[in-house]
Amino acid sequence: MITIALAKGALLKDSISIFKKAGLDFSEALLVENRSLTIESKCKKAKALLVRNGDVPVYVSYGQADLGIVGYDVLQESDAEIAKLLDLGFGGCSMSLAVKKDSGYLKPTDLPPNCYVASKFVKTARLYFEKLNIPVEIVHLTGSVELGPITGMAEAIVDLVATGKTLKDNGLIKIDDIYHSTARLVANPLSMRIDNKPLQDLILSIESSNDNKN
Amino acid sequence: MITIALAKGALLKDSISIFKKAGLDFSEALLVENRSLTIESKCKKAKALLVRNGDVPVYVSYGQADLGIVGYDVLQESDAEIAKLLDLGFGGCSMSLAVKKDSGYLKPTDLPPNCYVASKFVKTARLYFEKLNIPVEIVHLTGSVELGPITGMAEAIVDLVATGKTLKDNGLIKIDDIYHSTARLVANPLSMRIDNKPLQDLILSIESSNDNKN
Repeated sequence: MITIALAKGALLKDSISIFKKAGLDFSEALLVENRSLTIESKCKKAKALLVRNGDVPVYVSYGQADLGIVGYDVLQESDAEIAKLLDLGFGGCSMSLAVKKDSGYLKPTDLPPNCYVASKFVKTARLYFEKLNIPVEIVHLTGSVELGPITGMAEAIVDLVATGKTLKDNGLIKIDDIYHSTARLVANPLSMRIDNKPLQDLILSIESSNDNKN
Repeated sequence: MITIALAKGALLKDSISIFKKAGLDFSEALLVENRSLTIESKCKKAKALLVRNGDVPVYVSYGQADLGIVGYDVLQESDAEIAKLLDLGFGGCSMSLAVKKDSGYLKPTDLPPNCYVASKFVKTARLYFEKLNIPVEIVHLTGSVELGPITGMAEAIVDLVATGKTLKDNGLIKIDDIYHSTARLVANPLSMRIDNKPLQDLILSIESSNDNKN
């Protein structure tokens, strides 16, 4: 049986559509009353694990899931060894650098040396500033990163921006885009290597419907 | 003005009661329609930051909050330098080791050497097994840790247990308690040291009502 790790939250609905087109129906997972963490497809040929965004690479790398769908942002933070198969195009948002609107900072190099930058994405933030050769201290927050500049703890934030509403509501503006993040199809490298025809057929089917869309 | 970091979620209601008894009313934060991350007390003498559990030590250690209320479990995972002032007694739950009910493991030393243990609390889990001198590999998950044993990825989990319902619903049983966690009052060490009478009075008031309760 094929096992698929799906991220709960914003990507779930589109992830389920992708597998439905490929013949696996996990739509039970979208029912409000669903509390189950594992869902069998209607055809009983596959099983989905409903996990937190950041846990998708863990289940896939440990081989508890053959496939997974997860945001590019999560992959950038993860050290898990997994095969990145396909850009699925949905769930688009940008990893951005933002500051207080009235801060006067218009570009990253305007930030004062050794200032604090708050982020949930510490690896991304660290690499970004290293490439720019700007010394900053990254403060790791797990939620509501916009509070960093509001409270004066941080001069800037590195965070995912979808509509920009949260930034606007908190008096922040974007001054740089670091990368564009979309949902990705990932696989366990060993599952890919062994002779598993149903898995290979499933991947081919997703690839071909993805190609037709683009 | 005194700033207080409060953890959103299970501890919020009781945390607000503690400050209300001490004369600071943040009950606006409990309104369902509240979306604000900062709340001023009705008397305008203090401000509360509503943050994620794990971020309370960050705001307090960086001095953006003078005081905070957070679970002992979060403090055990955090490296933040903060003053631990008081056990407030509420929000009790146990940090436990649990396994599949039908696994046959009755105590930690029954676990096979080098097996996988899933946890959100990697530091706690690592220290626990180090003390017991049992070599295990800790798998860091960020949510739904019970999926670890269900999927076969992990032999055991280290997780917070309040009522035990989640364990039971997932066919797991507790085989050891690591510590009992409750809500703690914490403070920024510098805020404590400088001459700040309103802050000292507030702490004394919380201490005395806490003493009366015990």
